[in-house]
Amino acid sequence: MIRRALLTLAYVLWSALAARAAEPLPSWNDGASRRAIIAFVEKVTDEKGESFVPSSERIAVFDNDGTLWPENPLPFQILFTIDELKRRLPDHPEWKSDEYIQAALSGDLKVLLRDHYKGLFHLIFVVVAGITTGEFDQNVRRWFATAIHPRFKRNYDRLAYQPMQEVLSYLRANGFKTYIVSGGGLDFMRVFSERVYGVVPEHVLGSRTDVVYELREGGPVLLKTTNRPFVDDGPGKPESIHQFIGRRPIVAFGNSDGDKEMLEYTTIGNPLPSLGLLVHHTDGDREYVYDANPRSSGKLVKALTDAPQRGWGIIDMRKDWRSIFSE
Amino acid sequence: MIRRALLTLAYVLWSALAARAAEPLPSWNDGASRRAIIAFVEKVTDEKGESFVPSSERIAVFDNDGTLWPENPLPFQILFTIDELKRRLPDHPEWKSDEYIQAALSGDLKVLLRDHYKGLFHLIFVVVAGITTGEFDQNVRRWFATAIHPRFKRNYDRLAYQPMQEVLSYLRANGFKTYIVSGGGLDFMRVFSERVYGVVPEHVLGSRTDVVYELREGGPVLLKTTNRPFVDDGPGKPESIHQFIGRRPIVAFGNSDGDKEMLEYTTIGNPLPSLGLLVHHTDGDREYVYDANPRSSGKLVKALTDAPQRGWGIIDMRKDWRSIFSE
Repeated sequence: MIRRALLTLAYVLWSALAARAAEPLPSWNDGASRRAIIAFVEKVTDEKGESFVPSSERIAVFDNDGTLWPENPLPFQILFTIDELKRRLPDHPEWKSDEYIQAALSGDLKVLLRDHYKGLFHLIFVVVAGITTGEFDQNVRRWFATAIHPRFKRNYDRLAYQPMQEVLSYLRANGFKTYIVSGGGLDFMRVFSERVYGVVPEHVLGSRTDVVYELREGGPVLLKTTNRPFVDDGPGKPESIHQFIGRRPIVAFGNSDGDKEMLEYTTIGNPLPSLGLLVHHTDGDREYVYDANPRSSGKLVKALTDAPQRGWGIIDMRKDWRSIFSE
Repeated sequence: MIRRALLTLAYVLWSALAARAAEPLPSWNDGASRRAIIAFVEKVTDEKGESFVPSSERIAVFDNDGTLWPENPLPFQILFTIDELKRRLPDHPEWKSDEYIQAALSGDLKVLLRDHYKGLFHLIFVVVAGITTGEFDQNVRRWFATAIHPRFKRNYDRLAYQPMQEVLSYLRANGFKTYIVSGGGLDFMRVFSERVYGVVPEHVLGSRTDVVYELREGGPVLLKTTNRPFVDDGPGKPESIHQFIGRRPIVAFGNSDGDKEMLEYTTIGNPLPSLGLLVHHTDGDREYVYDANPRSSGKLVKALTDAPQRGWGIIDMRKDWRSIFSE
């Protein structure tokens, strides 16, 4: 009798856990954002419904910094860049007379951020120029294996937002192709995108410079250059989406004014049903609080103003997310 | 008794036809090229074999002009461009003083081809500049619906090589992603790639210029410009493959020296098994004969010289292909 009761109890517990696990987006509280995502997915995948979208047209685009992981204290690629400058400084005495490199090494952000981030781009270029894509890949891997986030005390690639990882998986399980469309570097993101987000290299779009093909004795290489930089931010996002994908997305997630044009391109006048959402950083205890705060690298002012008239949803991190990072 | 014999006969016939239909690459004669393709696919898809390649790494790249359809008498995009110039000439009196446009209208190819095709690029730019990607798409559609190939007397989009359409389908049925990597225009090819080749827009790479995002009253548009042209030919092909796909292909099909670097990038020093093949135009009766012939737009000299040492197969159109175009 006791044995039977225990078995029944075990079964009930197991069923409850299984049901919970099968519920989509378990790290989300059951608020307007979670409901909007699930309702949209159910609508466009219902073959008998009026809003059905064939799988081939289910393109979802995601900003990275501030949308899929934090962008504080600075975007992680900037922190990587500064660490790389330090690591490689002994081999580059000429860097000592470079104003921006000196500013980076002494932590003088003002110099780096003036003139539309001119200094930051200069630094990013310095650490990529003249090395092969394979060497760059190794440098990025080394950094992720060793560098630690100053506040959260873990490797940077363990700081993806768990609720957003769930959204990516949920969309893919429903026939969507998930793309990252980020101001971050194309080659930088491809090092971790598949492992961290399940996003394959060919679904990553980012800022880039030309690469140059060379056939060396050991085989072909691609040299990274600083030629023809393309900044994949603001209007650059829909422009890249057209060049790389050639279809309009039907889902877009962003978190800053640099994502405004991507959300417009996804949702305004789209003949297919569409969904646009903005991650609003409202949780100072578990992450950061900012939107118009001039000290954060991600500004959310214009896009937040436009949101109501555009029908874009606002994800309130504090209220909507049960957890921020996976344990 | 007779009825039974007829039924048996019908069954035997049906079985033979079904077996034939199930054989891969039915438009190919059973020679070295067909065998190499099938042996490679069976090798990399055999989960228990040493040469197994996971589906995610099965990237196959195809040149378009001369590889998937003819490039004579000129690449089809050039013929489209000249027809567009004629169609739009009444609205552009300023074109009358343009040397290259005059050469195109009077059929003076020498002027267009000198200085590394400077004139051709100029013409291509003229017909794309200042219109939206949507308008360009309509112009290309209109041309395919009306223009007729001077020799084969059919619409240009009905001139795909049937044996290559079969290769594309066969590879996709075996878990490959098939990409077009062409010197032709990105936006030009996307109009027909899915319909003609089964290649979705996001798997098309080609020559391109910047597009510019604009939010108009009717919704977002992308304006085509002539800024920052990228010619997706020669070394530009592996460079584009890195930027757009971020993986090395394991299969490459080309037909001219402009595909040499793409075949190198696919086959030299690749840690995965790889296959490179060149379509050799040897069939003057059914298509064209050329390689070093200076009157053809596709030269095959250097790549043909390199082929034996690189292990690249040569597809002999006359001997290998049972049919050229689908009926």
